[in-house]
Amino acid sequence: MSALNIPESNLKRVVVIGGGFGGLKILNQISSKYYQVVLIDKNNYHNFQPLLYQVATSGLEPDSIAYPLRKILWKKSEFYFRNTKALKIDSENKRLVTEAGPINYDFLIIATGSKTNYFGNKVIEEKSMALKSVTDALNLRSLILENCEASLLTSDLEERERLMNYVVVGGGPTGVELSGALAELKKHVLPKDYPDLDLRRMNVHLVEATDTLLGTMDPKAGEKAKEYLTKMGVNVWLNTKVENFDGSTVKTNNKELPSKTLVWAAGVSGNLIDGLDSKSIERGRVLVDQYNRVEGYDEIYCIGDVCLMKSDENPNGDPMVAQTAIQQGGLLAKNLNSLAKGKEMTPFSYSDKGSMATIGRNKAVAEVGKFFFDGILAWLVWMFVHLMALVGFRNRVVALINWTQNYITYDKGIRLIIRPFKNREKD
Amino acid sequence: MSALNIPESNLKRVVVIGGGFGGLKILNQISSKYYQVVLIDKNNYHNFQPLLYQVATSGLEPDSIAYPLRKILWKKSEFYFRNTKALKIDSENKRLVTEAGPINYDFLIIATGSKTNYFGNKVIEEKSMALKSVTDALNLRSLILENCEASLLTSDLEERERLMNYVVVGGGPTGVELSGALAELKKHVLPKDYPDLDLRRMNVHLVEATDTLLGTMDPKAGEKAKEYLTKMGVNVWLNTKVENFDGSTVKTNNKELPSKTLVWAAGVSGNLIDGLDSKSIERGRVLVDQYNRVEGYDEIYCIGDVCLMKSDENPNGDPMVAQTAIQQGGLLAKNLNSLAKGKEMTPFSYSDKGSMATIGRNKAVAEVGKFFFDGILAWLVWMFVHLMALVGFRNRVVALINWTQNYITYDKGIRLIIRPFKNREKD
Repeated sequence: MSALNIPESNLKRVVVIGGGFGGLKILNQISSKYYQVVLIDKNNYHNFQPLLYQVATSGLEPDSIAYPLRKILWKKSEFYFRNTKALKIDSENKRLVTEAGPINYDFLIIATGSKTNYFGNKVIEEKSMALKSVTDALNLRSLILENCEASLLTSDLEERERLMNYVVVGGGPTGVELSGALAELKKHVLPKDYPDLDLRRMNVHLVEATDTLLGTMDPKAGEKAKEYLTKMGVNVWLNTKVENFDGSTVKTNNKELPSKTLVWAAGVSGNLIDGLDSKSIERGRVLVDQYNRVEGYDEIYCIGDVCLMKSDENPNGDPMVAQTAIQQGGLLAKNLNSLAKGKEMTPFSYSDKGSMATIGRNKAVAEVGKFFFDGILAWLVWMFVHLMALVGFRNRVVALINWTQNYITYDKGIRLIIRPFKNREKD
Repeated sequence: MSALNIPESNLKRVVVIGGGFGGLKILNQISSKYYQVVLIDKNNYHNFQPLLYQVATSGLEPDSIAYPLRKILWKKSEFYFRNTKALKIDSENKRLVTEAGPINYDFLIIATGSKTNYFGNKVIEEKSMALKSVTDALNLRSLILENCEASLLTSDLEERERLMNYVVVGGGPTGVELSGALAELKKHVLPKDYPDLDLRRMNVHLVEATDTLLGTMDPKAGEKAKEYLTKMGVNVWLNTKVENFDGSTVKTNNKELPSKTLVWAAGVSGNLIDGLDSKSIERGRVLVDQYNRVEGYDEIYCIGDVCLMKSDENPNGDPMVAQTAIQQGGLLAKNLNSLAKGKEMTPFSYSDKGSMATIGRNKAVAEVGKFFFDGILAWLVWMFVHLMALVGFRNRVVALINWTQNYITYDKGIRLIIRPFKNREKD
């Protein structure tokens, strides 16, 4: 038995850190004929990040977008899961140090994903809300509902306005989808819940530093998203940079927005782990070769958001999205299987399957290959793709029921402050 | 505007404290022709307590058994909800003091329900888990899953046993249903999730101080429940009283049970509110006459678990169950309507609609009038009754899907440690 109580085996041991999109793909493709596989994750569930904004805005319950990691390993022999936090790589001794003790590896795969990037602004980090984890989403859901309740309880009109306003920073898919969902709450749900609140005073602001929304997509997507959002009542501020936030006013380079709630979705950086040589790190990500092997290490691999695979044609690496992690995870698993069979490994190349974002009811933008489309067709495709991507039959059915009911009734039913956000750490 | 920003009205104002079964029935039956109604609740949702044990054991998501209170008030004029905590009754000035300020009332209805009763044992109160709120249930769900994960991470066999054992105290419906659900987790779910854990070492103990389970039901119910539980592997200890718990061993009057988890479901007491004369309180509940009017007050009423309506035939009052609260709430609303019309009020008498408890798959006991039945019929009736009692179409459909999937697959899918219990306060 090792320190994590993993039975010894004649097979080589692959330790995977992180049960996100990339980690799951490894588990799915690697062969237990050749390897014993140990998954380490600080959470016991896989979390479908693209739908976190729906949890935050009461459209889906958190349990629909999360899936127990152990259930994914059911009936797989030679696969182990340990629910603990990875702390440090000790590459000399080929072991990973975790909160529950060290574990030896033959191969280590870093699949730790990304975290919110505050670009060093500690004040914003402390005072803003993020949207990267299920806990973040539940905290934001509680806070939005608490803000509404608190607005009713104050007679101070300025305070009320600050409680009702939202500033979402970052015009990527998360920011666009969240501000659209907030506009829908304002239009369809809150007027029925709060007939005695003057909702004309509620403002949703989307702030983006560059001159376009959805900057990674076709320029038409950004324009269309801006048109949709503006029509839905969202104030879109392009070329605007948030500089400070004191908890009640958001200061940008060109205006002040009165709001107690700032949601920071303006960037991510690699979720690094200690112990790698600094030469292997660039721009907060782990440098890998075309086989996802970490520069300078033979037995350590890295996939997904946390890695940076540069090439001459592609100096910034592939996009930090689920597709990259899935494709790299799939290929790496196959490559490790090949390695065990003495075959050659295949170098990675990213295949763009397209991208999309939903803004609201019947409103989405999608890009597939050279085709761009929007409106209800894009919206239906978005729903279908996301529904199918959820792990587990139950989750799909429950999400479908929620979406169907939301569509028919214009309602979002899960408006529960189950754990108040007040007085809680953000973890 | 009053201090809670409720618009003034020509109608008399009824303030209801608590959106449980009793409070909801009041809202449903009282006429807005005669009264302005203000509901005060510290939570923004109604919580279906009879199914909390299913949330704790990963069978249902919390969002299925909770329902937003504001949604219940949709389209009702003259009804207001304020999400704040009631602190004290100031009966001289006819006002209720809340955390958000005072509010005047013409009539006050106390519907605050009950809380866990530790019978003064502070050590147990501090170290045990309760099962009275959604937060309690989520904490218990997290702890059960954390215990399993921690068992795998320790090599200390005694420690492992203590992590895997459960002591449930109290042989009422909550204790019986919870220990049955734990036994099912042990049998059907955990072996697949934890193939490397020796589950023969896991023990579920149900401890009851009297000589029977389900003491409020027909004696046959208690016998059958004991038979079912024993067959499912639960150790049922009757005539056994828990005396102490140091966080790793439960001490009773006749044995010691090694366990780190003690769930206290051994009793409830009224959730009292400050400000009533001590003469109006007996055995931790508020004394009311047959119109649910609090002894000594003309404008204050009290319904449900928190009140005690004694009579010569019924010196202990009616049972502290949902049915009592619902029936009292319904009648009180009608009586207040009658009062406004100058008609006479009707005295309350409890009508026993029967009671039931589910122990596991196809195993339940039910009592309706003089009829007692058990097995799959009782189980189906239990499911139907509880499904229909859930508030909201979405909640019913989602619960039905979960139950159907659990039944077919022998699985309980919602095994997520979304907020770890460790290092968290209990509510």
